[in-house]
Amino acid sequence: MSNLNIPQHGFSNLEFEERLSKAQKIMHKQQLDAIFVTTPQNIRYFTGFDSQFWESPTRPWFVVVPNEGKPIAVIPEIGQPAMESTWLDEVRTWTAPNPKDDGISLLKSTLEQCSNRFKKIGAELGREMSLRMPVIDFYKLKEKTQLEIVDGSPAIWNMRMVKTKAEINHINYICNIASAAYEELPNHLEIGDTEREAVRKLRIDIAKRGADSTPFMPGISGPGGVSQIVCGPTDRILEKGDILFIDTGSTYDGYFCDFDRNFAFGEISSEVERVHEVLWLATEAGIKAAIPGAKTDDIWLAMNTIIQDAGTIGNNVGRLGHGLGLQLTEPPSHRPGDNTLILEDMVLTIEPAMEYAPGKMIVHEENIAITKDGAKLLTKRAPREMPLVK
Amino acid sequence: MSNLNIPQHGFSNLEFEERLSKAQKIMHKQQLDAIFVTTPQNIRYFTGFDSQFWESPTRPWFVVVPNEGKPIAVIPEIGQPAMESTWLDEVRTWTAPNPKDDGISLLKSTLEQCSNRFKKIGAELGREMSLRMPVIDFYKLKEKTQLEIVDGSPAIWNMRMVKTKAEINHINYICNIASAAYEELPNHLEIGDTEREAVRKLRIDIAKRGADSTPFMPGISGPGGVSQIVCGPTDRILEKGDILFIDTGSTYDGYFCDFDRNFAFGEISSEVERVHEVLWLATEAGIKAAIPGAKTDDIWLAMNTIIQDAGTIGNNVGRLGHGLGLQLTEPPSHRPGDNTLILEDMVLTIEPAMEYAPGKMIVHEENIAITKDGAKLLTKRAPREMPLVK
Repeated sequence: MSNLNIPQHGFSNLEFEERLSKAQKIMHKQQLDAIFVTTPQNIRYFTGFDSQFWESPTRPWFVVVPNEGKPIAVIPEIGQPAMESTWLDEVRTWTAPNPKDDGISLLKSTLEQCSNRFKKIGAELGREMSLRMPVIDFYKLKEKTQLEIVDGSPAIWNMRMVKTKAEINHINYICNIASAAYEELPNHLEIGDTEREAVRKLRIDIAKRGADSTPFMPGISGPGGVSQIVCGPTDRILEKGDILFIDTGSTYDGYFCDFDRNFAFGEISSEVERVHEVLWLATEAGIKAAIPGAKTDDIWLAMNTIIQDAGTIGNNVGRLGHGLGLQLTEPPSHRPGDNTLILEDMVLTIEPAMEYAPGKMIVHEENIAITKDGAKLLTKRAPREMPLVK
Repeated sequence: MSNLNIPQHGFSNLEFEERLSKAQKIMHKQQLDAIFVTTPQNIRYFTGFDSQFWESPTRPWFVVVPNEGKPIAVIPEIGQPAMESTWLDEVRTWTAPNPKDDGISLLKSTLEQCSNRFKKIGAELGREMSLRMPVIDFYKLKEKTQLEIVDGSPAIWNMRMVKTKAEINHINYICNIASAAYEELPNHLEIGDTEREAVRKLRIDIAKRGADSTPFMPGISGPGGVSQIVCGPTDRILEKGDILFIDTGSTYDGYFCDFDRNFAFGEISSEVERVHEVLWLATEAGIKAAIPGAKTDDIWLAMNTIIQDAGTIGNNVGRLGHGLGLQLTEPPSHRPGDNTLILEDMVLTIEPAMEYAPGKMIVHEENIAITKDGAKLLTKRAPREMPLVK
């Protein structure tokens, strides 16, 4: 983990030009005249537009990324002043909400203006994406236009899976913040705390250290491990023999970290010690396997072999890590059959999990960036021995 | 504003039975055998399931609400232990992520099992909704099944627009928290603060008072008003003559408040004083017009007449208030042509806005619940004179 200066909020025009140029190469290759995006992360990726207004589902927003020239925003009037302050030159608006035509005509004419060659447009129709607009409006658009609208998600993930240096720097910074807070946390935990209190301590510390937000911080506990990792915290009181699992997706300037830590309360059984060591070694193996030219399947296999040999009875997570960036989880997935080629400047989690007895699961996680020489840790490596709260 | 005890997190089984019974009546009327929902708010509405895992877009989740019997969850294995702790009896899972079949077969068979009569299913296809699943998977489902899948959003909004007493109680509680924090805020603001610092003070106070989260808190400032209300805060320094607008959607147990306050710095011009008074009166008129039997158009007209008479040059918001609940903004909208009948137990914002000079907009907002005798304020009414920070 390197020490980093605080990265500036926002990115240079050069950064957006770099993203656009990469996008346009991919669009040419896939014979798309344009893609249009509707979701906060994709709109932010191409424009830098940052808003909390996405909490309101009332109005759809669109950004059209043509395969020549700059992106064009097609948005509700309410967003005009803010969108005009981005690097975009063209912001087209309509008065919204308008149930009769919530931007569909304007989107249609913009798409048609950008489609001189392939008559084909990509949209967010595929995996790990959803369309942030009413599906019935999407049907209307398809009916009204002669253009072919195809699944643009492979193209979009192709763009976003490999990060720029500035993106990696942002992710590294939020990983540093969360690493430091996790490291400090056991000094502030006590037997008798509730899960909720424990999580709040970490949340406040991460905010104080400079994170912009913490949309994701499940905290779950149980004797010797946890049965699930997606719901919590609750008011459950932490007792001797418990393992507290805390995961976090905190953000800096829109970019996520995504990693967990485990804390033992009062005592650690020899079985938990053994499983913790197995997962620590599986993480090492996953990190080592993450080199340019390898596949996600190889990373999965490196971890899975160790976990299987150690006698796992399974886990319900369905994979052993994934991509991250503007979203907590992004493609690819470390799972058999995923078959994604690992490339320089991908950012990935390494996330082995092991259920060693029914309802007793332990999960480790680190974040890495791929360099030409292999994985570079963005998080500070979890301690080899689980921190013990006495 | 009434004093409220802290409502318990979570709802009784009776509450979910009440919601289901209302939903099933509406489904019968609209000849739907079932609806299926995919989004965090709709799944939470029917099941109580609360998770931060929605931040991960990788896996779709489904809940099927049949027009007889209890809802059935059709979800990734990772969610099984937590979903089984809700009031549902049946949780069906698949091993996810699975690009070849991410729950579609299981969803199809569940829908078909529930469809004995109308052969018609509602889905989240319409206004102010989006489908949280890949559109290409939705196409697959439509291809595979003989069932007709129609826009279920009118039915769903019909269910959710009228709140239960427990829902109103939750919204009232978060409104109380934010009202108290807004009232205290000017005592902690100073000329020379940045927008970001000002917003952070309110955010921390609202958290300390017991809010669960604050997903929405734009803070925007400008001399005599603001040009937009959706992006911010920034590091802009608050100076003499500025108006600071802060809006918040904070939550308690999933339920939102949504209202703003304005603060003047150093001095208030007579023009700002006049506009503030106009908006205060327009809010009064909007609240008075919000009675059972009226329409959203009437509420809009009551406010708009006052704003027009006062010489507004417009605003870019597109409406003068809306519904709220599990989402920051929900139907209906106070705008001409919306034409929604106001019913007892709706929860609404009253939100007049006025741009009195180019780039100088002021916006007021309160939250109300509809009783048989008219509107009941859930927020503590904004002071008639704008608080002045010296």
